[in-house]
Amino acid sequence: MSIVHENIPDVTIGKFLQELGSSAPAPGGGSTAALSGAMGAALVSMLCNLTIGREKYADYQEINAETKKRSDELIHELTECITKDMTSYDSVMAALKLPKNTEEEKALRSERLQEAYKSAASAPIETSEKCLEVMKLAYSLTGKSNKTAECDLLAAALNANSGIALAIVNVKVNLLYIKDSEYVGKTCYWADRITREASEILKNIREAMKA
Amino acid sequence: MSIVHENIPDVTIGKFLQELGSSAPAPGGGSTAALSGAMGAALVSMLCNLTIGREKYADYQEINAETKKRSDELIHELTECITKDMTSYDSVMAALKLPKNTEEEKALRSERLQEAYKSAASAPIETSEKCLEVMKLAYSLTGKSNKTAECDLLAAALNANSGIALAIVNVKVNLLYIKDSEYVGKTCYWADRITREASEILKNIREAMKA
Repeated sequence: MSIVHENIPDVTIGKFLQELGSSAPAPGGGSTAALSGAMGAALVSMLCNLTIGREKYADYQEINAETKKRSDELIHELTECITKDMTSYDSVMAALKLPKNTEEEKALRSERLQEAYKSAASAPIETSEKCLEVMKLAYSLTGKSNKTAECDLLAAALNANSGIALAIVNVKVNLLYIKDSEYVGKTCYWADRITREASEILKNIREAMKA
Repeated sequence: MSIVHENIPDVTIGKFLQELGSSAPAPGGGSTAALSGAMGAALVSMLCNLTIGREKYADYQEINAETKKRSDELIHELTECITKDMTSYDSVMAALKLPKNTEEEKALRSERLQEAYKSAASAPIETSEKCLEVMKLAYSLTGKSNKTAECDLLAAALNANSGIALAIVNVKVNLLYIKDSEYVGKTCYWADRITREASEILKNIREAMKA
């Protein structure tokens, strides 16, 4: 019984870890990227929930309410990214099964495979972008959320940053098979940019925590 | 309905994220540390399962069987660390409720609080040590496990490394309240050491992957 076609929020932690540890093709590292991001988003929501309605933080009610709206959505969206990750190889598997008897068949199979690898890379790219959004939300709350739990903003960012690093491993694995050098170049540039941006935000949050 | 006293493997991902995002005192960042570590351990088991019984990897059957035995245990132990994290503040909460009317009561309360903060710090310390073990297992398998999924060894290490960073945030939060300077000094030294060791292992795995 695979969890690939189950509703992820209904899957137990025990079952998820069991399937992750098995030799089944999915879930794998990309699914842990999305779950890390979802945990980061949840910690942002936690901070908002610990701040909303507290008189002491009257000045920051609006930003916390707005942030919570988006972080709650991101929990949901990143949970969906777990499913997207688990099915991201379906099109690759399908293309690999195409016939390759004639030159025409070979060409078609090769073309479909190239599309499939790009499609497979799009799942962890989406996960990364959403994780970066989690990090930005966490940073925007520094100094504007419940002081007693503020260290969990750093935890939120660490989870999301790990989500980005994990997702990029999966993006790069797909790039190995993609022949479109412009696409590969652009995606490598994107990966460097988002990694740098994420580590910059993490550094800024650490600085803000020290202060 | 809190998940604090539930059996964590039976808790659904949706429920875990919901409780994490709520204003409930637990779970928080420390629980995400342990779950990240458990995901790392599961990815190590996955690689072993993809290698055991394959003739192509005949030379590495023993190390994969041994590693799998330990990584399977670590999935379980790190899942237990989620519960330990969620209850780690119980003794702090109990000590905070002690009476402080007389000098004697104040002194006893202060003493109990100090013990409680050390006890609270011990949960994320344990999580970190187990995460480091996951990273060492992942590194020990580089070049000795199924080539097609080897990038998930890096994913295993990234998850466990994130578990360490997350756990250390929680260790340091407790240190802020601990007056025993020898304990604080030793623990800061430990945190620096394990962080450096983890990033060294991560670097080594990245190097091994490139080769």
